[in-house]
Amino acid sequence: MELEDCDKELLNDLSSLKSALLTAADEAGATILGESFHRFSPHGISGVVIIAESHLFIHTWPEYGYAAADIFTCGDTVQLDKAAEILVRKLGARHHSVVELERGKSIVEQSRVG
Amino acid sequence: MELEDCDKELLNDLSSLKSALLTAADEAGATILGESFHRFSPHGISGVVIIAESHLFIHTWPEYGYAAADIFTCGDTVQLDKAAEILVRKLGARHHSVVELERGKSIVEQSRVG
Repeated sequence: MELEDCDKELLNDLSSLKSALLTAADEAGATILGESFHRFSPHGISGVVIIAESHLFIHTWPEYGYAAADIFTCGDTVQLDKAAEILVRKLGARHHSVVELERGKSIVEQSRVG
Repeated sequence: MELEDCDKELLNDLSSLKSALLTAADEAGATILGESFHRFSPHGISGVVIIAESHLFIHTWPEYGYAAADIFTCGDTVQLDKAAEILVRKLGARHHSVVELERGKSIVEQSRVG
């Protein structure tokens, strides 16, 4: 996800960002296993939430009102749209875009053969 | 990165995987800030290395000999090819593929205007 024209102060607020990412994971139905956040000087935050179904990541560039988020999941229990919508709303992103990538095609092929 | 036909035992070996991801980050010239790994039952590992330039992530499915890796960087100091080559070698991947995604176009545009 590309999150643009976000609330710049919020992109530099560790507790708000942590809350946004954890809420997105939780409300999307993911099982949260851990989290790690790092604040850069003078600005910018990197944060990850590790979920049983893979991970959510966010990197913010407050000076540009921009954040990049990855929502990486396996299985079909995590509601991706819900996680995405929560991030857009909580970060105050006036524009956003989503690119979806399918991973692990070799797993699918092996499952069929097996 | 899609890493296929890997050494299955290695994909379930926490210390080897941790070493592979940290070595890839380090030898590619990244500044390592932290790491977090999680082993699943009965198999599979998720691991992240947070770097000043963003992150490296790996998720493994030993039962399929498959691992998905993300190398997310900003700036041009991290040698992506080197990180990728180390992961392929250390995981014993007989096949692999790489998809490169450009992020943060809005930053580039704002930099030009500014």
